[in-house]
Amino acid sequence: MSVDVSYDPRTGRPNGEVPVTPTAEVDAIVTAAAACAVEVAATPPTERARWSGAIADALEAARDELVDLADAETALGRPRLEGEVARTAGQLRFYADVAVEGSYLGATIDHASGANPSLARVNVPRGPVAVFGASNFPFAFSVLGNDTASALAAGCPVVVKGHPAHPLLSQRLGALATDALREAGAPDGVFGIVHGFDAGVRLVEAPQITAVAFTGSQRAGMALRDAAERRPVPIPVFAEMGTVNPVVVTGAAAEARLAEIASGFVGSFTLGAGQFCTKPGLMLAPRGSDAARAVADALREAAPQGWSLTEGIAEAARTGVAELVDAGAEVVASVDGPDAGWSVASTVLSVPLDALQSGSRLLEECFGPVALVAEYDDTEALARAVESLQGTLAAAVMAADESDPDLPGVLAQLTTKAGRVTVGDFPTGVAYTWAQHHGGPWPATSDPTATSVGAAALSRFTRPVTYQSVPESALPAPLRDDNPWGIPRRVDGRLTLPTDAQPPTKEGP
Amino acid sequence: MSVDVSYDPRTGRPNGEVPVTPTAEVDAIVTAAAACAVEVAATPPTERARWSGAIADALEAARDELVDLADAETALGRPRLEGEVARTAGQLRFYADVAVEGSYLGATIDHASGANPSLARVNVPRGPVAVFGASNFPFAFSVLGNDTASALAAGCPVVVKGHPAHPLLSQRLGALATDALREAGAPDGVFGIVHGFDAGVRLVEAPQITAVAFTGSQRAGMALRDAAERRPVPIPVFAEMGTVNPVVVTGAAAEARLAEIASGFVGSFTLGAGQFCTKPGLMLAPRGSDAARAVADALREAAPQGWSLTEGIAEAARTGVAELVDAGAEVVASVDGPDAGWSVASTVLSVPLDALQSGSRLLEECFGPVALVAEYDDTEALARAVESLQGTLAAAVMAADESDPDLPGVLAQLTTKAGRVTVGDFPTGVAYTWAQHHGGPWPATSDPTATSVGAAALSRFTRPVTYQSVPESALPAPLRDDNPWGIPRRVDGRLTLPTDAQPPTKEGP
Repeated sequence: MSVDVSYDPRTGRPNGEVPVTPTAEVDAIVTAAAACAVEVAATPPTERARWSGAIADALEAARDELVDLADAETALGRPRLEGEVARTAGQLRFYADVAVEGSYLGATIDHASGANPSLARVNVPRGPVAVFGASNFPFAFSVLGNDTASALAAGCPVVVKGHPAHPLLSQRLGALATDALREAGAPDGVFGIVHGFDAGVRLVEAPQITAVAFTGSQRAGMALRDAAERRPVPIPVFAEMGTVNPVVVTGAAAEARLAEIASGFVGSFTLGAGQFCTKPGLMLAPRGSDAARAVADALREAAPQGWSLTEGIAEAARTGVAELVDAGAEVVASVDGPDAGWSVASTVLSVPLDALQSGSRLLEECFGPVALVAEYDDTEALARAVESLQGTLAAAVMAADESDPDLPGVLAQLTTKAGRVTVGDFPTGVAYTWAQHHGGPWPATSDPTATSVGAAALSRFTRPVTYQSVPESALPAPLRDDNPWGIPRRVDGRLTLPTDAQPPTKEGP
Repeated sequence: MSVDVSYDPRTGRPNGEVPVTPTAEVDAIVTAAAACAVEVAATPPTERARWSGAIADALEAARDELVDLADAETALGRPRLEGEVARTAGQLRFYADVAVEGSYLGATIDHASGANPSLARVNVPRGPVAVFGASNFPFAFSVLGNDTASALAAGCPVVVKGHPAHPLLSQRLGALATDALREAGAPDGVFGIVHGFDAGVRLVEAPQITAVAFTGSQRAGMALRDAAERRPVPIPVFAEMGTVNPVVVTGAAAEARLAEIASGFVGSFTLGAGQFCTKPGLMLAPRGSDAARAVADALREAAPQGWSLTEGIAEAARTGVAELVDAGAEVVASVDGPDAGWSVASTVLSVPLDALQSGSRLLEECFGPVALVAEYDDTEALARAVESLQGTLAAAVMAADESDPDLPGVLAQLTTKAGRVTVGDFPTGVAYTWAQHHGGPWPATSDPTATSVGAAALSRFTRPVTYQSVPESALPAPLRDDNPWGIPRRVDGRLTLPTDAQPPTKEGP
């Protein structure tokens, strides 16, 4: 296939096409990225922040045109997509601010002392990063999304593989970023984009690529990871994959407000036609609460759902429901999606708790507006069920209030399974802030220490280097005594703040 | 084989033996580790510091007996081994101090703001860690070495695989730690030790083990990594493996002090019979400096070298020299080791620069007192040679002084290849401080972000969790508003220091 074809999910008809990138062109793009890597790494974060800001400005300026293009390829609707453009611009500025603040550099200086030589440690950019974006957030997790924004902020050139579910938008975003970066004075090669499956394979195998960031399915994520491991020099693949994101309803919560919880659960698992990596796919509710029927009632009352992003996603969701039934679940309610185009019925299934056994299909994600409900007899049975769950991006507890006796135990156990634990909130919705963690234990991600959202996202793209007995004049800027970048550092064991920072807040105890 | 046999390297005769651990016992030890993992994780770092301190005290109290045992199994000599006991006790206390300081927790709190919910992030211990220590540091990188000390400090139970090169010492250190921990009131299961190859395999495959730390050869490290990847739930293997650790001599330095550099190089590559992972294995010196002869002269003048730790290490070093010769190197000088027991000749070889091509045996480690010397024509030729080198733990530049015109370029290029770059110092010698990094790009380690020495060593054994909209009373201690552990945190984007800390040092610009 020499083109990526763009389709309208509302009709299944083609919008247009984008030529795949020939191998020689992939190689040239990667070579250009590698050629500027040292320059980009040495550029102060304040200057790189100008580059990211230029992309953010260009995104906002082109919002209406971009949303038209995205809506034709994704059918996610203008309001959602307009919000996503704003978020994507905000993310670009946020990661740049995080880089300017400078803690991500981990600058640590131990002056010579006794028998110890002087040692100074700083995180340096890994080098060119390959980004494989997601289908379901065509702005926020795609060409110019979290991975690209955090890699650029960390000082790495980026080569993106355009997503086949929105090839026209990918191409347009690539051109927009290239133009904005050139106008901002960034070096050629700091950003590139390629299209097509083979181009993606070439990218992962390119010797100059130092890391891969991926958001998508487990199958694709693992294939990338295997390819990266087979290289003569293996590189990390930070793969954020799908998971079940369980919701536990305590006994007291079910008594107090089951209908409200069921309605919120439906809103969360059908949002964007269930095409969220944080979609809650399983509710664990107390025996006798009749939670499955409450969810089914809420589902029938909910607004009609939208389209699947691709024909493949719709098919996989239908197959997934059949597999869940084969594995012991029973459909309680199913509400059809739109008649035309690609869609899948929003479906709630009930399942006996003891069917949730390690290795069962019931414990794996079904991407789309599909969720299971199981009832537990007591907290011991609940604990056994939670223990059987796979690692997950997020998990939620619905408690009656903060004195709910079941809250501490459930919270502690979910902490062992999830990258993010919420109380009262459903797992969809991932704010980009300093404290966010969007990752989680295997198989939610390939590396549970990595996050693709939040300030720590930059850390994926650096590695530490320690300079021993290096003369002051030869040290990189973040390690010089005069602290020219004005960043927080640890000096002789003590955290120190730059003089132009606000006075530090003092805290207890 | 049902025993690990202990040998005296000075004679090749057996000292005694240690029974291998039966599978059922391995499983029981791992189960005990998992059973206490939640309790250990919830224990404040100040309390865990008492546990580590108790081990350190016990080590120092038993020093003479331990050194006798170690010397009989390693032939490293009393002065070196006494120093290593002191260092190992110091490391245990240092990592505990790092945990008490609390920055390793990465506590980050974003209060609810606008549309964003409250988010609070903290690094939690991964759970039980398997430690595979090194042969060459029977104290500092073995049963109670850096990996064990940093994993315990980070809040993880540890199960050690005793090293077959010093099984009696491993067994003794295991008993010493078990007793000290029990007396200090640590829970049963927080530390365990197993012996034998099969026990090690069982350990890596145990479902309760969450991470592996390894120090040793590339072959063994990669075998562990492959085993960990084949698990139903893959886990990370932080493998610190051997590398070449190149030393670059600038033109000005060669003119100013080649004999002194040659003598230092010999001291470094023959230290401990060359059995250091930071042994410098390659010198790159300017054409015409006759550096190989200078190194050969220094080698002949050096004190006689000691023994190889094992018969296998001695054989591998001899085979390695033959392989280097086959690959184009030429022996310039060779000084025999002791007549009795296991030893290998200290050997310096010269090699044409253009033989240093990617994929050549010449670019791989030869563990033992063996080093290559190559001469470069000009800085371009030097840069091409450095570019061909593998990733390495450490690299050194010998410059004339800080105004040496070649220093900045060489330093910048070595930064892309190494985890630690020294100026003037030889790479052997790895201080445990805040700023240390003992790691490096593939194949020096399996993860270039990981260090096995220095404050950041704890980070290998934690993963972040974010709590969303979790009531204050249900948050873990490091995230509560009153900061009961008194640790540095980031609150609403701002770094904050605890009130009982010293006033922060103010820095430029």
